[in-house]
Amino acid sequence: MALIVQKYGGTSVGSIEKIMAVAKKVIELSKKGDRLLVVLSAMAGQTDALINLSRQITEIPDPRELDVLMSTGEQVSISLFALAVKSLGYNCCSLLGFQASICTDQTYGKARIKQIYTDRIMEELEKNSIVTIAGFQGIDEGKNITTLGRGGSDTTAVALAAALKADVCEIYTDVEGVYSADPNLCANAKKLDKISYDEMLEFASLGAKVLDVRSVEFAKKFNVPIHVRSSFTENGGTMVVAESKEMEKILVSGVVSDKNEARITILKIPDKPGIAFAIFDPIFRANIVVDMIIQNTSADGITDLTFTVPKPDFQKTMGLVKDIAKKIGASDVIGDEDIAKVSIIGLGMRNHAGIAYKMFQTLAKENINISLISTSEIKISCIIKEKYTELAIRALHDSFGLGNEK
Amino acid sequence: MALIVQKYGGTSVGSIEKIMAVAKKVIELSKKGDRLLVVLSAMAGQTDALINLSRQITEIPDPRELDVLMSTGEQVSISLFALAVKSLGYNCCSLLGFQASICTDQTYGKARIKQIYTDRIMEELEKNSIVTIAGFQGIDEGKNITTLGRGGSDTTAVALAAALKADVCEIYTDVEGVYSADPNLCANAKKLDKISYDEMLEFASLGAKVLDVRSVEFAKKFNVPIHVRSSFTENGGTMVVAESKEMEKILVSGVVSDKNEARITILKIPDKPGIAFAIFDPIFRANIVVDMIIQNTSADGITDLTFTVPKPDFQKTMGLVKDIAKKIGASDVIGDEDIAKVSIIGLGMRNHAGIAYKMFQTLAKENINISLISTSEIKISCIIKEKYTELAIRALHDSFGLGNEK
Repeated sequence: MALIVQKYGGTSVGSIEKIMAVAKKVIELSKKGDRLLVVLSAMAGQTDALINLSRQITEIPDPRELDVLMSTGEQVSISLFALAVKSLGYNCCSLLGFQASICTDQTYGKARIKQIYTDRIMEELEKNSIVTIAGFQGIDEGKNITTLGRGGSDTTAVALAAALKADVCEIYTDVEGVYSADPNLCANAKKLDKISYDEMLEFASLGAKVLDVRSVEFAKKFNVPIHVRSSFTENGGTMVVAESKEMEKILVSGVVSDKNEARITILKIPDKPGIAFAIFDPIFRANIVVDMIIQNTSADGITDLTFTVPKPDFQKTMGLVKDIAKKIGASDVIGDEDIAKVSIIGLGMRNHAGIAYKMFQTLAKENINISLISTSEIKISCIIKEKYTELAIRALHDSFGLGNEK
Repeated sequence: MALIVQKYGGTSVGSIEKIMAVAKKVIELSKKGDRLLVVLSAMAGQTDALINLSRQITEIPDPRELDVLMSTGEQVSISLFALAVKSLGYNCCSLLGFQASICTDQTYGKARIKQIYTDRIMEELEKNSIVTIAGFQGIDEGKNITTLGRGGSDTTAVALAAALKADVCEIYTDVEGVYSADPNLCANAKKLDKISYDEMLEFASLGAKVLDVRSVEFAKKFNVPIHVRSSFTENGGTMVVAESKEMEKILVSGVVSDKNEARITILKIPDKPGIAFAIFDPIFRANIVVDMIIQNTSADGITDLTFTVPKPDFQKTMGLVKDIAKKIGASDVIGDEDIAKVSIIGLGMRNHAGIAYKMFQTLAKENINISLISTSEIKISCIIKEKYTELAIRALHDSFGLGNEK
């Protein structure tokens, strides 16, 4: 008898019909004798509708009260799901964050799960009930409702799987798994049967929207096997698991692209200690997330510094940086929104030279200029002009032989 | 410094604009130094929308899960209200049933408040916060969400006022108070400045929809002064308070009508012990609320029995009663949906004869036939044909001189 945690995203429970379909699917599984814990997101569109309500009041909503509002979305899904299961004649019990004792810190809107007390969940499971739990929400020490941020339901599911020592955490979504490339770009993109947590972290950070980064970090920490799969087929998806020897044989698992960044370069900065801090301090204070940062070796005591920020923060950051540039005596600031990041990911890179060489060669062959490069042990990212994104992805996918046989 | 509990109904918070208006009103009051606890209903239409969602799944929803669903309505209102108050620069904190420790029994859908632990509320009030609390919901011993049934937010407000020993519980609604008659029927209907709990109980039970009956019972028990008033004007409304000597001087306070009942008569029942039980047992078991019951004195060992039920339960009750009639050897069952109940209410009736006489005389003058009569110490109700309702109300209102001077 296995204990399975399943998580269904907003599109999987986006209508009463879809909720009924998930209920039937879960019941079929439970008939086989497995114990099931079902984590749900808010019905598709619901979260945006609630945000829209709050925006009609204020653009800067109080974070505590916004969480009280937002958490109703998942409350509606789990109660409807439980009604559906019970209407079909099976036991079901819904639990909200405070009932399932999903204890978090007090960072409203982006809370971190600190502890889950599983007594109540176990009690309900032992009644042979299907237990459904609101994703995305928790409770702090003062009994205040917190939410975990976008994608938080993935984290709820993985954290529950860890706390309950579940056999697997299945993440149901609208795609069939993690692919060697976006199937919309590469017709022969291959579904990956198995990847490591670290690769999944890179996929998630670099723009593949399959799993929330924090949930993967959590899974890695507690060694929870994740199965990413589709709600709409019975096909197996992608297993995200601890690294194994044979995984290193695969040099490159996939290529991903991200058009959501913009580049900013500060020219001719006097190269003195404390300059990087002076530049980034006001940007961090404005809660802007800086991704790549590259500083050239100093020549004659002056240097250039380039970094990327999310596109929606571009104008704001340019404003801040122009002020700083003046203060520190830099000559100019140039920005470019017309960029994209293409990355290749693979555990095997660690032990094999030549992967970067092949990547640069492939892009060069297509006459695509690289304006920034950043690497980690298991990924290489290049910033290129946005219009070349699809071309670059297809060329890299082909040259590394990632697709299915044609 | 007074402590005031205010309750706003669904129409008072039916849109973002109205929520903002309530927020401004509450802030103005709090500036005068009073401490304010604001109980809200779900936004108008929201409760029906949620019921409709559940109906798309099942006609007989599981009561526990239905309460989880329904309670989101008030959660949305209080979070939006708190966002509004905070966006205007004032402290505010929303509390749900489980946070405000509104402890109930486990009767899902119609729970009774057993106890309120006020520590958290007091803590927030002492921070000079306006505290807003979700009406209609509570929490049982097992941390399950319960709801109090339609009109439950009135009860939440009164119970909180009792627990906190508040100076007054103000119920804001879309009418200006309790009237001597429905102002839509009698143009000169008079707003009552002050009535007793017992009179209010009769008004509420007999069809005036201003206050929920249970909230009045609660207020009577704990001697909480209720002020029923309009959200849309600054005028004083109706105070509902403990009985005082001078109240008895008023013979009749008001007239009310209710078209929501149907009448059933069982003819020629053998008059034996246990017959009433045999008749009503299956009806009570079907959760049908019987209002008036009248049995004529037995003649020759047979008797007739008449009672009224809510119109929506009429067909179902007829079915049950026809079965019973056969079993007990009654001759026939006749039903009538085409009826209305008109009632006069007044504390003074207790000590004054002639009130009933005047009521019957007034109806007779208008040629209105009375088919059932029931009385309590402070009210007289008559069942008449539905089409005469408005005529009867106007005639009674005039003959007892209840209206404003014309």
